[in-house]
Amino acid sequence: MTDSGLAPELIVQSWFNTDRPLLLSGLRGRVVVLAAFQVLCPNSIRSSVPQAQRMDETFDPKDVAVIGLHATFEHHDAFSPAVLKAFIHEYRLKFPIALDQPNLASPIPQTMERYKMRGTPSIVLIDRRGMVRKHAFGPVDDLRIGAEIGALTQESAARSLARSSAA
Amino acid sequence: MTDSGLAPELIVQSWFNTDRPLLLSGLRGRVVVLAAFQVLCPNSIRSSVPQAQRMDETFDPKDVAVIGLHATFEHHDAFSPAVLKAFIHEYRLKFPIALDQPNLASPIPQTMERYKMRGTPSIVLIDRRGMVRKHAFGPVDDLRIGAEIGALTQESAARSLARSSAA
Amino acid sequence: MTDSGLAPELIVQSWFNTDRPLLLSGLRGRVVVLAAFQVLCPNSIRSSVPQAQRMDETFDPKDVAVIGLHATFEHHDAFSPAVLKAFIHEYRLKFPIALDQPNLASPIPQTMERYKMRGTPSIVLIDRRGMVRKHAFGPVDDLRIGAEIGALTQESAARSLARSSAA
Amino acid sequence: MTDSGLAPELIVQSWFNTDRPLLLSGLRGRVVVLAAFQVLCPNSIRSSVPQAQRMDETFDPKDVAVIGLHATFEHHDAFSPAVLKAFIHEYRLKFPIALDQPNLASPIPQTMERYKMRGTPSIVLIDRRGMVRKHAFGPVDDLRIGAEIGALTQESAARSLARSSAA
Repeated sequence: MTDSGLAPELIVQSWFNTDRPLLLSGLRGRVVVLAAFQVLCPNSIRSSVPQAQRMDETFDPKDVAVIGLHATFEHHDAFSPAVLKAFIHEYRLKFPIALDQPNLASPIPQTMERYKMRGTPSIVLIDRRGMVRKHAFGPVDDLRIGAEIGALTQESAARSLARSSAA
Repeated sequence: MTDSGLAPELIVQSWFNTDRPLLLSGLRGRVVVLAAFQVLCPNSIRSSVPQAQRMDETFDPKDVAVIGLHATFEHHDAFSPAVLKAFIHEYRLKFPIALDQPNLASPIPQTMERYKMRGTPSIVLIDRRGMVRKHAFGPVDDLRIGAEIGALTQESAARSLARSSAA
Repeated sequence: MTDSGLAPELIVQSWFNTDRPLLLSGLRGRVVVLAAFQVLCPNSIRSSVPQAQRMDETFDPKDVAVIGLHATFEHHDAFSPAVLKAFIHEYRLKFPIALDQPNLASPIPQTMERYKMRGTPSIVLIDRRGMVRKHAFGPVDDLRIGAEIGALTQESAARSLARSSAA
Repeated sequence: MTDSGLAPELIVQSWFNTDRPLLLSGLRGRVVVLAAFQVLCPNSIRSSVPQAQRMDETFDPKDVAVIGLHATFEHHDAFSPAVLKAFIHEYRLKFPIALDQPNLASPIPQTMERYKMRGTPSIVLIDRRGMVRKHAFGPVDDLRIGAEIGALTQESAARSLARSSAA
């Protein structure tokens, strides 16, 4: 996994499953899994949302923070925050989920644009220093993503920093 | 399968995947599968909607008509016909789908109430004469529902009638 | 489903899960599902054996008899009746299973040859009169095979006979 | 993952999918996944063998070596090396597989005994230095085992050694 620069902060309309907004800068020291989905995207519902839920249940929160991002880039007429709220309730999702901030000038919401996501599902792995280490579009299998997360958890913030300087 | 009386007509706000409204009376001579679902109900999305799609692809339309019914009995604040339209598009559903007519006096829409459905997913099998022969709540497995549909297809309208009189 | 003639009796080396040998002639009046498999055939193990088990659990034995047939047509050096016995025990199969009688002159055992099976898994549906009504090679899906079995259960021996004469 | 001592060498009756016997000592520097299975064990066939195959396809062989171990601890009357050979052929397994050496004095073969495995499937993870780091009985999920393998691949032989001395 190469280093693609510092992960930009999320721009969020509203948060679910968390009392207060999350900042990536506040999660330094942990590996962050950012799982972007859309409630009307079949691959998100079949594959990526259940996988994010499994990740949240599998990993120690001291090591790995799983964050969902609802990227409303299509079906704007059908979507409202109430849809996402009902979805989270019905699917019993427990991890923090951010509703991406809409863009006045574009159908692509702001975090999705900032991360240059191609659609949903997308997954971004951020290391303990806050650097983007993986960014994939489409379903990814548990074994490979598990291995990548496991590898990132083994890096200390210090070592990561050294690697970054050397690169 | 016992006979639970004539299947009442659906009361429909709007139809998808059909040029004109369907009447059960117009489907006499065919077995009708009525698959009630809700887009924010996990068991509907995981189990019953894909099963309805398989049924539509498996059976000869001269013998079996598959009809979806979106029963909006909860999450009214989240739902709009645009949600259902986008859902049908994204999941590439091809069979006719009715949006149940809301009820002014109750959260339960009118067809759901008329059929006394307990929730979603629900499935109703209607024989060639228009009589309700099965009504189940919750996921049902392909082997059993396939056998029940296959059995109903073997009944002629005439024989069905005889059986009904004898019962 | 067309009628392909009277199902020939099985030629069996040994039976499992039954106290005495089964004769198709003794099963007249019931629909018979003959599920041919081979313990070293991946599609048999993944698909057809679990399906046969589901059929045995789903259908009323007064209407449908599920019979397994172990067709040892390859890997003769690896196979022995003890392999089949252990397999049946480990997979907790409850339906009667026949071990096909080997052929002195050919690797194809006798029942497999008599039925002209192309390999495993194969499935044969036999109607209440004992006539072969379906014969398929490869995995078949639950919905379709369920419908075919359900349709056959609706035929009375008498009606079946009439249909046969008319054909 | 704690350190449970140096992984003992396998005691092998015969090898498949490799030209020459493998020694764990010859695999130092790589993470080794030892996946113990039995061809008549349903959980081995459904879960652990396909998982081992996925691991072999997912990981870089310079980092991770996947080794199967057929542990014949029951059904001795049914098993022969020809069964395993046919199984490997039919399931198109590509990774090296060892047939555990039988024990004259016990039904438990020698490697299984040496590793104190409780049954099949069992999985053992061995780090780059050759130390056992995980030993589990029963199916394990892809996400968790992927993470554990990924973590081990991040350890250098040197660091592993340091960790060992400190422990």
